[in-house]
Order: sequence, then structure tokens, then C-alpha cells
Amino acid sequence: MKKVKVGVAGYGVIGQRLADGVALQGDMELVGVADVAPTLSVRALEERGMPYALYTADPSRQGALDEAGIPVSGTLEDLVQQVDIMLDATSAGVGLKNKEIYQKYGKKAVFQGGEKNAIADVFFHGYANYEKGLGADYLKLTSCNTTGLIRAVDCLDRAVGAEKVAITIIRRVADPGDYHRGLTNALQMDKAPSHQAVDLMTIMPHVDATGILVHTPVTHGHIITVVLTPKKEISVEEAIEHFSAHPRIRPVSIDEGFLGNASLFRYARDLGNPRGDMYEIALWKDSVVKSGKDIMFAINIPQEAVVIPENIDAIRAAMRMQPDRESGTSETNKYLRIGAWTH
Amino acid sequence: MKKVKVGVAGYGVIGQRLADGVALQGDMELVGVADVAPTLSVRALEERGMPYALYTADPSRQGALDEAGIPVSGTLEDLVQQVDIMLDATSAGVGLKNKEIYQKYGKKAVFQGGEKNAIADVFFHGYANYEKGLGADYLKLTSCNTTGLIRAVDCLDRAVGAEKVAITIIRRVADPGDYHRGLTNALQMDKAPSHQAVDLMTIMPHVDATGILVHTPVTHGHIITVVLTPKKEISVEEAIEHFSAHPRIRPVSIDEGFLGNASLFRYARDLGNPRGDMYEIALWKDSVVKSGKDIMFAINIPQEAVVIPENIDAIRAAMRMQPDRESGTSETNKYLRIGAWTH
Amino acid sequence: MKKVKVGVAGYGVIGQRLADGVALQGDMELVGVADVAPTLSVRALEERGMPYALYTADPSRQGALDEAGIPVSGTLEDLVQQVDIMLDATSAGVGLKNKEIYQKYGKKAVFQGGEKNAIADVFFHGYANYEKGLGADYLKLTSCNTTGLIRAVDCLDRAVGAEKVAITIIRRVADPGDYHRGLTNALQMDKAPSHQAVDLMTIMPHVDATGILVHTPVTHGHIITVVLTPKKEISVEEAIEHFSAHPRIRPVSIDEGFLGNASLFRYARDLGNPRGDMYEIALWKDSVVKSGKDIMFAINIPQEAVVIPENIDAIRAAMRMQPDRESGTSETNKYLRIGAWTH
Amino acid sequence: MKKVKVGVAGYGVIGQRLADGVALQGDMELVGVADVAPTLSVRALEERGMPYALYTADPSRQGALDEAGIPVSGTLEDLVQQVDIMLDATSAGVGLKNKEIYQKYGKKAVFQGGEKNAIADVFFHGYANYEKGLGADYLKLTSCNTTGLIRAVDCLDRAVGAEKVAITIIRRVADPGDYHRGLTNALQMDKAPSHQAVDLMTIMPHVDATGILVHTPVTHGHIITVVLTPKKEISVEEAIEHFSAHPRIRPVSIDEGFLGNASLFRYARDLGNPRGDMYEIALWKDSVVKSGKDIMFAINIPQEAVVIPENIDAIRAAMRMQPDRESGTSETNKYLRIGAWTH
Repeated sequence: MKKVKVGVAGYGVIGQRLADGVALQGDMELVGVADVAPTLSVRALEERGMPYALYTADPSRQGALDEAGIPVSGTLEDLVQQVDIMLDATSAGVGLKNKEIYQKYGKKAVFQGGEKNAIADVFFHGYANYEKGLGADYLKLTSCNTTGLIRAVDCLDRAVGAEKVAITIIRRVADPGDYHRGLTNALQMDKAPSHQAVDLMTIMPHVDATGILVHTPVTHGHIITVVLTPKKEISVEEAIEHFSAHPRIRPVSIDEGFLGNASLFRYARDLGNPRGDMYEIALWKDSVVKSGKDIMFAINIPQEAVVIPENIDAIRAAMRMQPDRESGTSETNKYLRIGAWTH
Repeated sequence: MKKVKVGVAGYGVIGQRLADGVALQGDMELVGVADVAPTLSVRALEERGMPYALYTADPSRQGALDEAGIPVSGTLEDLVQQVDIMLDATSAGVGLKNKEIYQKYGKKAVFQGGEKNAIADVFFHGYANYEKGLGADYLKLTSCNTTGLIRAVDCLDRAVGAEKVAITIIRRVADPGDYHRGLTNALQMDKAPSHQAVDLMTIMPHVDATGILVHTPVTHGHIITVVLTPKKEISVEEAIEHFSAHPRIRPVSIDEGFLGNASLFRYARDLGNPRGDMYEIALWKDSVVKSGKDIMFAINIPQEAVVIPENIDAIRAAMRMQPDRESGTSETNKYLRIGAWTH
Repeated sequence: MKKVKVGVAGYGVIGQRLADGVALQGDMELVGVADVAPTLSVRALEERGMPYALYTADPSRQGALDEAGIPVSGTLEDLVQQVDIMLDATSAGVGLKNKEIYQKYGKKAVFQGGEKNAIADVFFHGYANYEKGLGADYLKLTSCNTTGLIRAVDCLDRAVGAEKVAITIIRRVADPGDYHRGLTNALQMDKAPSHQAVDLMTIMPHVDATGILVHTPVTHGHIITVVLTPKKEISVEEAIEHFSAHPRIRPVSIDEGFLGNASLFRYARDLGNPRGDMYEIALWKDSVVKSGKDIMFAINIPQEAVVIPENIDAIRAAMRMQPDRESGTSETNKYLRIGAWTH
Repeated sequence: MKKVKVGVAGYGVIGQRLADGVALQGDMELVGVADVAPTLSVRALEERGMPYALYTADPSRQGALDEAGIPVSGTLEDLVQQVDIMLDATSAGVGLKNKEIYQKYGKKAVFQGGEKNAIADVFFHGYANYEKGLGADYLKLTSCNTTGLIRAVDCLDRAVGAEKVAITIIRRVADPGDYHRGLTNALQMDKAPSHQAVDLMTIMPHVDATGILVHTPVTHGHIITVVLTPKKEISVEEAIEHFSAHPRIRPVSIDEGFLGNASLFRYARDLGNPRGDMYEIALWKDSVVKSGKDIMFAINIPQEAVVIPENIDAIRAAMRMQPDRESGTSETNKYLRIGAWTH
């Protein structure tokens, strides 16, 4: 079978993980990555011996790359011409400009949650609406929080129906290594409703969602509490059972030693996962409680890596590599070794 | 009128604020405070010139106080004999031992949230059940989070009835200056349901409460999100109106500059409040949203000072200084200048 | 005696403390403060009942103040005309624009460390070069770190002579309540030499100074370690003795409970100091060690309040209120109750 | 050639990295690791499919391991009998107890910095005194800070001679994932001189060392500033040249994007290093300054991994695998791919 050729624009926190994820897919070929400057990530690519070819997204700035001794294989336009589909992980707003290039060469593209909705034909989530993405030209993924949240809500929605959710997002404010933003000894409120709740409804319009987001000065994973009103009542044990059957939800407990978001980051490092990444969200079994008919629980969102599987699902849908949710997500999971831990 | 004579056991974070609060009441007299060691707070008392007489709670350790040049007026037993009622703000567990002394001299006492429930005859909250405290000998207050939470839930309960609440506590993990506990770049889960939700039901048994608590590495105020199911539907505007009418709830907004818990601490410092303290919880007006019939909102709990007014309410109830909730809390508010900001 | 009339431009972290400090001086009169917007500090001023008259520094923006219900007494120009001297604590760069107004009305002014050096005739420090400020029209203070550092270096310089210093500044990255800057789980390097070392040499040109600055994610006070090469060897005990004799240096120890910068903030709150402020730097007695002939020690800089006394010294020098260092700083100390703790 | 058989006691932060490091040595064989409980690290070992055999250090607690489904290959005593040398990375104090087992079977052992000095015959550092470790039975390594610091001081000492050093340690207070210790919005002082300075002198007795340590609430790497008095004056450029020639010192600069300790952690993750680890200390080129004849600079210590190479050097010395510093450290570096980045 001919492999699907993929390019990645933007080699930052998300872009490099997308590149690694694509490179692991047996039925895809990573043609190269594009960026504009000798960032630490680009310097690390060079120190690793350039496992991925680098294309410059802004030829006028190539001098800085040359000066830093980083070999460049061409321009973003060169890259686009060689691929079947682009994953665009550039900074918010840049994707819209890049889209012109993708259109010029008639190439499909997948955009990230930071872009405006108008950029895409379809808002996509591998588990919640895979079929909507089939054959689509321009897909937009949801942000990290929303992607992880939808996994959990969709899981119970398929089991017992979800009428509404009220979420509290306890957001990590920066990634490890971020110096351009930060918060020191402060919690910060966003105006309600949080955009993540609103975004969930673009993918799951039959669920009424609202919520409050609070930024916290940590770097290792968001924690979301969800109060979900099911259509059909469900027990704590049944809910845990449904979550446990989902390949991209990892049930954990405080008693095992998973005390918080930092435990999950440590565990992923101890597993030897590249960069200490984890693709699964975690569900704390000892957080699940009932509030009347409602069910309440807490999940952990590893913000740097959580969207990678759904991005790869998006390639599968857009390129019609697999015809449905079950087969599409399964292939992604297989190559990313998701669910291997349930041995 | 004869003033009610009050003593305070434990001159730590809560104890010194209780002493200050009592000293402000026109109808009470602070006889003295008790502690065991030359802590920073006790050293500061000395540097201030001993505005409050200090009694030693453990005569065998008086040497360290003498060495630090801190004058001692007697023992805890000496103090107890001079007062009508004790506020006990000692470390969890010590209150039970002290109770023997209070009983020996037939004195009433108010204990804090950290003590076991069995210590008291009545669980007390100035706004939620003042009348239950009337004439009681041993009262137990709720913890800071629960005290603030009950203010908000009781407020809506009196207005439209509260069926159930599902809360998410985003807890500050330590007070400013704490070195004996801390959390660094981590969120930490507690097992659900949180004890604050359970404790709420001891005061408001007609409300079904549950919740999840997450510790965060900050020092200036807990934030709690509440999903409340009212008996009678209520609009966002009506809810804000009810909260705004409550003397111990301060409505704020992000647009005014109240971006989070640290803004409230800064504001209280800028007000010139002693220690930068604030007695009111804050309610973010721009956090209030509807989830179906449920109403959701976020409040800020200034953990160091929030329980002071309810402690003083407890004195009023126990000593039958005022006969009911309205008159009792009003007197406390007047002397603490709570609500003065609504001019 | 006629009181010196003082105005304060900029009612932020420093400005409001300058206003409070001036208001405490028996021989000065605070005419008013100027700002441009209804910040939290300005809202707090209003909630306090306008103890200081507010002037608007930008009449075109007065609408927002009116809307927030904050009474305005006139413009910055109105204020300048009524005073003898202005303390300018506006954001860096604004002082230069304001200077035109001060010059227009022939009024003296004191600028803060953030302004460019060219703004002033004299770089001033109350203890290091009071006499240079006598009668000067435009004085520039040093930043918080430099001001505190110079106190300690000048103290030993006067005792035994200081040849050179190599400092390490462990900088708090934001003030309590700052949301516009922050750092999360990271230490951040500045290029060496740190500007504080360079600035020290503008005030003390006979000392060779260099250093490295590292930002840390905390809000309560910088800590500086100093390696000082004295002209005449000095013992640890002698150094502590000299520091202890300085009214604006507070010797503390870990054994007393001063474990770090947060202990000092807590102590100042427990003292009942407005805003929990402290004017003195702290010197850890148990940090003083010898490195060959050099002496090494650590000091704590309470960044929000440390420059207030030296600003007031600057008024005294510029207005020739006292003729020399000893009498000028003594008057400031008396009214700010600095050194009262050494009773 | 027969491979040297190695066992690791304690599979925590250090222990698992020692195991990984030994497993990479072409001339060593990792026989197994020992621990007592189903910690997250041990659970991760199991999820990875037990690449290393696990022995129980406390048979009475094996039940918990069994319950967690973790296969056990025997006891610590079983492990010790199969090896030539043990690396002991147990909690401080446990090593002394374990030493009895090592002695019982006549096996050599390497202990970590947390153990008491009396445990070992030799204090060892691969670069500073390799030859002292030749054939020794019990060696004690220095702690992470001291190990990294000695690399830098020894480097200049060999070049121009080091008379004395005065250091400031800006210590990360906890590792990522630590929940048993932490610090929130506070800097914390240790009594001077810091033990790291004292420990340096056990390895380099000809250097006079002192220093001050300040704990900071971060998790990714200590930063140390060093004021070093050389025997022979040295320029900034020469110092950078010497550091750059050292395989275990990585020169970096702010301009390249290495803004602080978190940049180095991010870079190591982007390199794809297991766990995001880095064996090299970093030296900021733009931190190097002169203070009179003294030279001052800042280094970064990646606390989780920095001691691994020197531990492996210790095996080489103790087992007389290589006869001298140059050949011993080179073999370690080769297998750990240290210095590969200087391509």
C-alpha cells in the first residue's frame, strides 16, 4: 500500500510531537517539517542529526538558521508540493496564511484549536465525529483541554446519553520551558462560560455545556472536574467501567501513587516515553461521585501530547484511510502503542 | 452594659486574627491570648509592645519565652478563670485537651474546623444556623472553605431553596510564610467527596452536597466553583442580586481588575486592612452561568480571615448577646466594619 | 515651621507607599496623588474615603474614573503647582514626559530607578551620598535591589572599606497581585553583569562591583548574596555588629524562625504594618561566613517598601531640610518608626 | 572480555537512572534492581515489561508487590550474590544497613551523597580524583550539586589553579512528581556554610570553599553561581574555552534560547533523551564576568541525572577497569554518548 505523505508546519511544542507521531505510523510517511527560526526545538533537531528534513516557512529569515548551522531542505512551498496532507501547528493566526499555500497546491490540511473556526470545513474529534471528517479538505481540531474532555464526555454519552455538563478547568498556565508567559503565586479567572465548554458543543451539539476556567501556576497537565447529567442514571462503578474500556482514557488512583498531575508526568517519564509524554487522559477512580442523578469526576489532560492521536485520526479520515471511527482510531492507537498498558 | 470577657488559645494564623477581631468589638473585652513558644507571631506581639497579655499554655516550656524576652502574664488556666468564653484556635487535637480546662472552670468555648466533631454540642455558622448556637456551651465552627461556601449556599437557599451542590475546591496549599508544608509545580487530588461538602451537610442537612478538591501551589485564597441545583429556577442577574445583598459576600468582576485570588489580596492590602486581611468572600459576577436549571458560580475564600466573623457570631450566640441571626451577625459586622464598602 | 508640600505621581505599588510615607512625616504635607485609571489601588483609595486627593495625569481618560465613581480634584498640572517637590513613581519612561511639567513650574522632583540616568542631576542614596543631593533639582533613586544592597555595602564600607563586591541576586519575579508578568516553575538568567552591580557603582564609584541575577517564581522579597572584599579584614562577629547598628538593616536568624523571605513578609504582617510592609532589609546572621579575607552574607530586600525611606531622604536633601546624612536619615527614620524595633 | 556485573539497590529517581546508565555500558551487565514497594517507578518498570529483574529489599513487604502484579526475582541478598559491585541509591541511612549485606558477600559498593561519610573508604569524583578510587571497596559519591560544581571547579583548577571559591546555590526544592516535599511562594535559607562547599573540600582539600544555599520553588535544575579565586589570572574567554573543552560541561547562552533551568529541561526532552535527562552541567557563557582577579560564572545542575556518569566512573575505578581518569571517564562518556553534541 502506498503510504500517505504528511508534512508538519510549525516545529514547536505540538509540531514536533505531531512529527514524531506521524513517523510512527506504518502507513504514513513524514516528508518533513517547517519552521522559521533556530528555536531550541530546531537546534535539538539538528543535534539529533536531522531525523526530519527541515523546510523554512520564511525564506527571508533563513540567515539565522544558516548561522546556527542548521541545514535547510527548501521552503514550506517545496514541502507542501511533496505531501498529500499538512498538519499545521503554527502559532494562532499563521494557519490562515498558510492555508493559501495549501489551497494553491490543492492539498488537504488539519489545523489546531487556536485557529479561528472559519478556517475549516469540519470541526473534528477522532472519537466523537470521525465520520464527519471523511474526505474533508480542511479540518480543525479542538484544543488540548477540549480534546481530552470530549473523550470522557463522548465515552459516557455513548453509554448512557449526556444531557449537559458543567465543567471546572484547573488549567496549567504554561508548558515546561515556557518563559514568555507565566503566573506566580496566583490563581487567575477567565470569564465564564469557558471557551472549552462552548467548543465542545461545536463537536457535540446535542450536549448543553458550560463551565469556569481557573489558571494555576503549574506546567504538568490540566485537571478538569466534570458534573455530567446523564440521560439514563449510571452508578459510580459503571462509569469507571466505561472509562476503563476506552483506549485513550487511563484509569488511575491516589492509592496507586497517582497523587496529581505531576505524578502522571513522572510516570510517563519513568515509562521511558519520549519527552515524558502521555497520549491518554487520566481518570481518577477515587474522584468519581454522584450528585443526585448527576455524575461527577476528575480527569487529567497532558496538554503537550493529548491532541496528537486525534490529529492522526484526522489524517485517516480526511484521506479516507479507514472508513469509520472504530477502524480509524484503532490504527492510530496501534502505531502509537496506546492501550498497550492494558495488557 | 458589662462586656463579655474573651480569651484566645493559640496565637497562630487564626488565633491572632481572632484576638484582633474580638478587640474591635465594643461589647467584648479581650482578656489575653495563650501560646507555648516564641514563634514569629509571638515575637511580633512583643515587638508591638504587648497589646495583648500573653499566657503560657505549657509552663514547662516557658524558658524559651523568657529567653526571647517575651513577658508572660500567667498560664492558660489563669486566663481561663478570668474569661466568660474561650476561642480555641490551637492546632488540631489540642483543643480536646484544652476542653478539660474549660470544663474544669465551667467556661464556654468555641472550637475551629480542624477539631473532631465530638468536641462540640453544636456545629455553628453565623448565617446558616445562629439560633442553634444560642446558649450552647461548646460550639464548633467549620473550616475556612466550608465557612465561606456556606455563606454563598445559604444565601441562595434562603432566596430560592437549594436542593444540591457539586463543588470543585481549588485550594491554596499553604499560607504566606508557611515553610512546614508546600507543593511545587504540582496539582494534588484529594479523594472525593471532599470533607468540605460533607461538612456543609452537618450545618445544612437539607442540601445534598458533594465535591472534588484539588490543591494548588499558591498562598492567597481558595477558589471554589459551585454547581447549585435550586428548588426554584433563578436567573444569573437574580443570583448576583442576592449575593450582592449579603454583607459578607463582595461581588467583584474581572473588568474592575479582580483577575484572581491575588488581586483580592492586593486589594485588601491597598485598603490598609491589617495584615492585608479580608473578611468577605468574593463572588465573581462574570463567573455566574446557567447549566440547564442549575446555577454555577465561583467564589474566593480568604483563608486566613474568613472565619473570624463567624467565630465572633458564635460568642454572641453562646453568650445570648443577641437573640437571632439578623441582630447577631449585624453587631459583628458593625464592629468589623464589614459591609462598609457598600456605602 | 512651614511644612514641605509634596505630590506623588503614579499611585501604583511604589506610589501609594510613597504617599503613605510622606503622610507620616511631621514636617511634610502630602498635597495629593496623581494617576490615570481606576486601577485596583485607585479603587481602594476611593473605598477608604479618599484620604488623599486624586489628580488625573491624563484628562482625556477621566471618563473611566468618573464611571467608577472616583472623585478627581484636578489635573497633574494642578497638583504640581501646589507642591514644593514631586515624587515621581510612574511607569518607566513616563517620568521623562512628566519632567517637562515639573520644569514648567520650576518644581523639584525625585525619580525612581526605572528611569533613564539622564533624567536627573544626581543619583541619590540617603546613606551613601546624602550630601550630593543637597539642593539638587532632579534626583534619581536606585531600584529596590540596589537601594537595599547599597545600605549593606555602604555600612561595611564606612567601617572597614570595601574594595569590590560580587553579588548574586535571587530576584522575586513579580509582586503579590501582579498578573502582567510571571514565571512558572523556572529560574531565569539575566546577562551578567547585573545592572544592579553597575548601578551601585554610580553611587559608590570607588567600589568595583559585578554580579549575576537569577529570577525566581516568588513574590515576597529578593535575596542577595554578597561576597565583599574589605580593605581591612573583618571578622564575622564584627560584620554582624556593624550591620546591627544600622537603623535600616534588621539582623535576623533562622533559629528565631526567619526561614526565608516569606517569614519576613509574615512577620511584617503580624507586626500590623500597613500592607504587611517592611522598610528595613534583613541580614541573616547565620549566613555570614568568611572566604579567605572576603566576607560573604545574605540580605533580604522587601521590594515594595524598601525604597520609601531613601525617597523621603531625597526630599530632605533636595529641600535642604537637614544638612547631612546623619540628621536627614534620622528624621526620616523617626517618622517611619524605623529602628523602633531595637528598643 | 568478561563484563562487570552490577546491581542497583533503590529504584527511585537516582536508582532507575543508574540502572539505565549501567545498561548502556558495553562492558557492564546490569543483573537487576532492588526495591521494597510498588512505587510509581516500579509500576512503570512493570508496564514496560520488566526490562530489569526486580529483587525485593524487604521480603516481609513482598505482598504489596504481588498484589500490584509485579514479578519479583528474589531478594536483595540474592541479587548481591550475583554481582561484582552494587550501586546503592536507597534513601539516606538505608545504605549503611545494606552495607552489611555487601560485606557479608565480599562485594564492593558505591554509595550516594546522602549517606554519612563514615560509610566509605574513599570520597570519589570521576574527574577530580579518579585514581583514589582505584580498587577501593566502598566509595561515596557527592550529591548532585557538589558533583556538578566539582566538575567546573576542577576544570579551572587543572587549568590555572583554584585558591578558593564562594558559591551561591539556588536550589530546586523538589523533583518533578515529588509530593512529599515542596515550597510554595517562598525562598528558604540554609545556615552557612552550605554542606556542598564543605563537601567539595573532602574531594579537593587544597581549595578553600564556602557558600550560601537558598531553596527555590522549582523542580528543573539547580543554578550555582561561583566566585573563584584563581592562582593564575584568567580571562573570561579563556575560562569559557576551558569549560567548553570539558565533555561533561555544556556551554550555552541566553541568545541561543537557554533562558534558564527550564530551557535546559525542555532541550533535553526535545533531544529525545530518556526522561528528558541531561548528564552535562550547563555553563552560561554570558554569565562569566571578572571581579578583580576573581572569575564569576553560573552553572546549571540537572539534579536527577548529573551523578550518573560519576557513579559509573566509580565502578570503573573500583573494579580497575581503566587505570586513570582520562581512560575511565572516556569510556563512561562513550557509552552514555556524552560529548556527542560537540560533533
